Amino acid sequence: MSRPVPKIVKARVTPILISDPPLLNVLGVHQPYTPRTIVELETDTGATGVGETYGDTEYLRVARALAEAVVGKPVTALNGLSELAYSAAQLTDDGEEFDPAGLRGRRTPEKTVRSVVSAFEVASLDALGKELGLPVHALLGGKIRDRVDYSAYLFYRWAEHPEADAPRDDWGAALDPDGVVRQAQRFADTYGFRSFKLKGGVFEPDAEIEAIKALAKAFPGMPLRLDPNGGWSVETSVRVAEELADVLEYMEDPTTGIDGMAEVRRRTGALLATNMCVTTFGEIPEAFAKDAVQVVLSDHHYWGGLTATRELAAVCRTHGVALSMHSNTHLGVSLAAMTHVASVVDNLDFACDSHRPWQTEDVVTRPHTFVDGALEVGDEPGLGIELDTDALAALHERWVRREDMHDRDDVAAMRKADPSWTQPPLPRW
Amino acid sequence: MSRPVPKIVKARVTPILISDPPLLNVLGVHQPYTPRTIVELETDTGATGVGETYGDTEYLRVARALAEAVVGKPVTALNGLSELAYSAAQLTDDGEEFDPAGLRGRRTPEKTVRSVVSAFEVASLDALGKELGLPVHALLGGKIRDRVDYSAYLFYRWAEHPEADAPRDDWGAALDPDGVVRQAQRFADTYGFRSFKLKGGVFEPDAEIEAIKALAKAFPGMPLRLDPNGGWSVETSVRVAEELADVLEYMEDPTTGIDGMAEVRRRTGALLATNMCVTTFGEIPEAFAKDAVQVVLSDHHYWGGLTATRELAAVCRTHGVALSMHSNTHLGVSLAAMTHVASVVDNLDFACDSHRPWQTEDVVTRPHTFVDGALEVGDEPGLGIELDTDALAALHERWVRREDMHDRDDVAAMRKADPSWTQPPLPRW
Ligand SMILES: [Mg+2]
Ligand SMILES: [Mg+2]
Repeated sequence: MSRPVPKIVKARVTPILISDPPLLNVLGVHQPYTPRTIVELETDTGATGVGETYGDTEYLRVARALAEAVVGKPVTALNGLSELAYSAAQLTDDGEEFDPAGLRGRRTPEKTVRSVVSAFEVASLDALGKELGLPVHALLGGKIRDRVDYSAYLFYRWAEHPEADAPRDDWGAALDPDGVVRQAQRFADTYGFRSFKLKGGVFEPDAEIEAIKALAKAFPGMPLRLDPNGGWSVETSVRVAEELADVLEYMEDPTTGIDGMAEVRRRTGALLATNMCVTTFGEIPEAFAKDAVQVVLSDHHYWGGLTATRELAAVCRTHGVALSMHSNTHLGVSLAAMTHVASVVDNLDFACDSHRPWQTEDVVTRPHTFVDGALEVGDEPGLGIELDTDALAALHERWVRREDMHDRDDVAAMRKADPSWTQPPLPRW
Repeated sequence: MSRPVPKIVKARVTPILISDPPLLNVLGVHQPYTPRTIVELETDTGATGVGETYGDTEYLRVARALAEAVVGKPVTALNGLSELAYSAAQLTDDGEEFDPAGLRGRRTPEKTVRSVVSAFEVASLDALGKELGLPVHALLGGKIRDRVDYSAYLFYRWAEHPEADAPRDDWGAALDPDGVVRQAQRFADTYGFRSFKLKGGVFEPDAEIEAIKALAKAFPGMPLRLDPNGGWSVETSVRVAEELADVLEYMEDPTTGIDGMAEVRRRTGALLATNMCVTTFGEIPEAFAKDAVQVVLSDHHYWGGLTATRELAAVCRTHGVALSMHSNTHLGVSLAAMTHVASVVDNLDFACDSHRPWQTEDVVTRPHTFVDGALEVGDEPGLGIELDTDALAALHERWVRREDMHDRDDVAAMRKADPSWTQPPLPRW
């Protein structure tokens, strides 16, 4: 059987704002709404596909440029997306770095391009899978596991945002060990999570040590992680690592920079994970040579998509570095993509992160539900999801209305509660 | 559209012997016939696919075991092939190494498995591509180049094999600089090759230096390479590198072992390529850390297939090491596979090797023809080749008849001409 390769005839980029609870971190607090970009592709054979990525202005600009450029291209032309994005968005790898938020590691033109390309790659695979009747994992060589484990993602948080008209939920505040354990218990009861990550860097390290110890007591034997987003000095990191040596599965980005991470590793032997110290291929040689990280938390957006994530997995496997997955606030499209790629990577050694349980909204008609802390890897064509176009339109409508939230800014959000708040220099402790 | 994923219902492994000229190398000479394994797969939807790999007894045993094990599996289940092969062939990665031929780098159970899996992966992609109407390159994310450059592969050689009934050709002997230049000229005239690799390690280094200088004079400005298969000491390698610094594009495996290669590099700054020093992912960390190789010549059989080759490309790209492709005696099935994967790898920095012009036989109905030293990357479904079942049967018939050639043994072949010949200890010079 021979037929022409399906070509992309429509590409639509829709910026949206999704509700986000007041989750605290080293920089501040999540805004009431977080920007995301939804990419929809349609082929000349009538297949449609959807992808999702970060939504800040710079991503959106590149996504809109790429959307124009992909029209007319074969939906299979994934290897050419990156070059297309550079040229369409008139970007070059000029070494420029910018860091508006600070939590995503290095920010360079390359990383913006990769993050945007990931949404187009995922949407292309979704469309191609639907066209061919194959799940995305089959297009990636087939799943080698039927379920992907996720970890509960615990946050210190307020009961509600300071703004009067912000979205609310019924989780209540979590600002001390009891609150953290209560939150973990609800995650465990509702979704069956069996490992727990606490976003740290919010309170004095001793308070966070107490919270982890409380979790260890409440959930004996279950893997625990602590991620202060680089908020600690090397000395503090070493002290926390020693205090928690018996209960932590790994420490995530305790301090910033390859040399600091390497020193913490050298002095403590603690397993160090990262989605900040190493977020680009360019950082790998030095970081791996110095043993700065032992677990890379891939964010398929950062790294450039699902094939790029497999490439990262291969690099990690080659060097005996473990792989797992990072998550930023995201919806069901990215969760489906994460689950498909996680199902094909052999060296996925730890339960993946997902923010998804914190989101009360989605753009898919049947949002995923974690059962026993895991998601099944489906065999439906493409990503196995369906876009909820009404929900998409409503969330886009919010984006149009709320120009003040087009870029994620946890520092500005904190300033609403504390007008004296400024971006804390790292290390904070 | 949804449909069941095509399943493999038949898997046939056919050992064959193909004619090979009396090409000389550091160990001896090519036998008149070289074993290869052809893998044919058929799906429950009637699609067929073909793959090719090494044919020595150990590969054949694993291929036959894997052929039984893949029946009933989805043709998309490529990521599971390796584990299936280990279990079907009752192999483990026990650290065992064996080295019957010496030219293929490390030989371990893992490498045997990867070499066999490569043929099943390629056959699966061929079948899947035909089923879906997509070329193999599209299943790998789409070609980023329309033609793949190859290099002329020059050999010192005799006019004919010593055995009376061996196959003959009209190339004549090439045993000195004039003979090598004549051979190169015929390759250039016939196929338009614009870069030349000479298999060295056959004569005293000074003789080979003269041959390269003669090539440089006959083909000014064209890239030249010299590959003595690890036949030289570090001192000799340094001397040759210095003598040929102005004319060699790279030196290929001048000496054996990571430390020796690293020393040659350190002392000369010469670009060093390899298909012996680094042929497994396990060798990469040390070799790259020591800067022992600057160009890895992937053999998609060694590395485990086309996706594994892309993974190798990613590892190389991450470390700033170049990638090109190695070739051992092979037919049109593997040449098609090489060309597809070469078309999707962005960091393919040098023209690929191919032995194919030396082969007078093939198992494809329309053998490839190099034009301007390159092959077009086709858009026909699958690999874009058709198996010549009559040719396959005849070459298999030869395999059945010639039990003495079931394993490639260049030392034994040399002994036919020189009964005193034994495997030369390396370094030879
Ligand atoms: Mg993190
Ligand atoms: Mg070689």
